[in-house]
Amino acid sequence: MEKMKRAERMVAITQVLMLKPNVLTPLTLFAERFGTAKSTISEDLMAVKGSLLLSGQGHLETIPGAAGGVRYIPEIAKEEATQFLGNLAECLSKKERILAGGFLYMNDILFDPSVLRPLGLIFAGAFRDKKPDVVVTIETKGIPLALVTAEALGLPLVVIRTGNKVTEGSSVSINYVSGSSRRIQTMSLSRRALDPQKRVLIIDDFMKAGGTALGMKNLMAEFEAEVVGIGVLVEVRITEEPKLVEGFLSLLQLKALDPDTGKTSVVPMVSF
Amino acid sequence: MEKMKRAERMVAITQVLMLKPNVLTPLTLFAERFGTAKSTISEDLMAVKGSLLLSGQGHLETIPGAAGGVRYIPEIAKEEATQFLGNLAECLSKKERILAGGFLYMNDILFDPSVLRPLGLIFAGAFRDKKPDVVVTIETKGIPLALVTAEALGLPLVVIRTGNKVTEGSSVSINYVSGSSRRIQTMSLSRRALDPQKRVLIIDDFMKAGGTALGMKNLMAEFEAEVVGIGVLVEVRITEEPKLVEGFLSLLQLKALDPDTGKTSVVPMVSF
Repeated sequence: MEKMKRAERMVAITQVLMLKPNVLTPLTLFAERFGTAKSTISEDLMAVKGSLLLSGQGHLETIPGAAGGVRYIPEIAKEEATQFLGNLAECLSKKERILAGGFLYMNDILFDPSVLRPLGLIFAGAFRDKKPDVVVTIETKGIPLALVTAEALGLPLVVIRTGNKVTEGSSVSINYVSGSSRRIQTMSLSRRALDPQKRVLIIDDFMKAGGTALGMKNLMAEFEAEVVGIGVLVEVRITEEPKLVEGFLSLLQLKALDPDTGKTSVVPMVSF
Repeated sequence: MEKMKRAERMVAITQVLMLKPNVLTPLTLFAERFGTAKSTISEDLMAVKGSLLLSGQGHLETIPGAAGGVRYIPEIAKEEATQFLGNLAECLSKKERILAGGFLYMNDILFDPSVLRPLGLIFAGAFRDKKPDVVVTIETKGIPLALVTAEALGLPLVVIRTGNKVTEGSSVSINYVSGSSRRIQTMSLSRRALDPQKRVLIIDDFMKAGGTALGMKNLMAEFEAEVVGIGVLVEVRITEEPKLVEGFLSLLQLKALDPDTGKTSVVPMVSF
């Protein structure tokens, strides 16, 4: 390969690191790939670091020492996050989204990668300090949201199944009362899906009374896991009735939903 | 903002484009953000394009004209894809993965963002020429795989529900015989989830007899959709018995699985 110029190497380094967010890459890998000295790569990295700092959309973290290297930490700028949630709240406040039972039609949002990606970065930014080991959700609609959050944090995802569908060896099941349906339901998780004593971040799409979140917390206790955070996209906040769980973060609040008048109001969280 | 140097602009451009794969960004956006002439941005882009070409891991596409701009098309290099599938096949061939009923334990793989991302790029590369409008899957385990494929192609995702759980207005349901369970089951999709006459790419994690894939094809016909491709991660290929659907792409083939002897064999597809 022809010897690359500094600017070319800087682009190539940016690409390699952004393709594997949160993954530590040793400097020797770049030195070998570009056929250049490690000290040259160090200088390249300093320059890349400086350029990325200007955007607020992710930065480089360098770990010194023999086992060290560099990794790309994906982020979203605060102003961008605020604007994004504002637009999303407006979009979700349209009356054609009202569904029977006090729900909002959100599937187009929940399954659209271009909407999910910023949401994952917002959750990751909110919970990175809690140092979770794994992201946990329950099927079905919360899966994409939890996946992008896991990826932004560089963590694996664990999906709790509803009912007793688990076919993966021995599993733990618990009963819970879904606040929405007021019926007793079952959720299950395979024993091999989650090692004991992990730090768990719970992510879900919607919270009404919080029964499902409470169920997930109880199930996590069976795995001796510590729930270090709970994040939901939309929280129903029509009355001030307390939820069944405390200390969760909701990005959007559903303040009003009246199928008769067609009035819906979704508001974004105020600050980060 | 202090005026940026060329190398800094190149890194910033790379970052902006990689953060929104497949999204067309007008050159004027960069010109305004960096306070420089559009012709300078054009030169920057040529240099970025050249640097990215060397990696085989994604390239820039420029669209000329007033409505034009530049976008990042994510890709995976052929050698990397081959090596990745080889490693994955080896990992899935371990005997502790055998589950009752002729299944493989794959949840750790199917929910791990660092494994999913390359798989999405491989599917995207295989089906981009078919110009799908939307990626379709069925809950639950295929959702993350379908999501990363949709993101790599810049498309929305549609998730078919099993049973009659759809709470989103009117829906279409069909019955199908899952080849694995040999029982009649139901799958449903909300009418508003998919506009008529779309070009659809079906992605799923596992295919045994192909009953679920056939069901999805039949359901798509109800939406006047054209199925332009079917991709599955693992195809059971223990006998040469034909599947219920034709013309699908499987990335891995399960050639042997014997719970008694513990012998399992998963092999990667041979060529791209």
